[in-house]
Amino acid sequence: MAINTIKFDEKGLIPAIVQDADTDDVVMFAWMNKESFKKTLETGVMTYWSRSRQKLWIKGETSGNTQKVLDVYIDCDADCLLFKVEPQGLGAACHKGYRSCFFRKVSLPDGAFSVVGERVFDPEDVYKNK
Amino acid sequence: MAINTIKFDEKGLIPAIVQDADTDDVVMFAWMNKESFKKTLETGVMTYWSRSRQKLWIKGETSGNTQKVLDVYIDCDADCLLFKVEPQGLGAACHKGYRSCFFRKVSLPDGAFSVVGERVFDPEDVYKNK
Repeated sequence: MAINTIKFDEKGLIPAIVQDADTDDVVMFAWMNKESFKKTLETGVMTYWSRSRQKLWIKGETSGNTQKVLDVYIDCDADCLLFKVEPQGLGAACHKGYRSCFFRKVSLPDGAFSVVGERVFDPEDVYKNK
Repeated sequence: MAINTIKFDEKGLIPAIVQDADTDDVVMFAWMNKESFKKTLETGVMTYWSRSRQKLWIKGETSGNTQKVLDVYIDCDADCLLFKVEPQGLGAACHKGYRSCFFRKVSLPDGAFSVVGERVFDPEDVYKNK
């Protein structure tokens, strides 16, 4: 089965790039292990491996901003995944309340950061008491 | 300087996601170390760290398919970079001759792979005698 040729790294993980299927914006980058990848395919809801918490992580479980899987792609070396998703809830991929985690632009050539993304919620409201 | 807050991992690397600025297709995923990131900003040409060859790697040096940097973004945790590029030459990001390394789609729910991407060169022609 093709899916068994996917290469997980020495920690059993594979990078997952997430694109909003509607805007094609890259909204998030995270990691999956085999279990979270299988769960993502089975449930159609983006499920990652949290390296900091060392457990499966259904993105948006707390905030309601889950990601519905539309399409899945794999790269030439079978060691990176790309997902096209339909953001649910308020549509924020970022825990800081932005649509995309890549909400900061790096100026060239000086390397300064500036916020360019759209913020759709205030994390203090969403995550308080959780 | 903001650029000094970028987090490289325990191997001194940071993931780099590359989008074609024209189509917004994700065309490649690779890694950078601090030196390759600085070189990318300075030269405006995507320069990675090759983990397999353990050296700086100007993408397209052999094939002519370099990538001109247009915009750079950084994620919320400052541990992943996103580049919008203008592909040069034949416009193939993939060493297998496709515009994008993500030229294969994973069918749901069975996980079969199918080629969906556009191939713009035959690697046997481009890389022979190199």
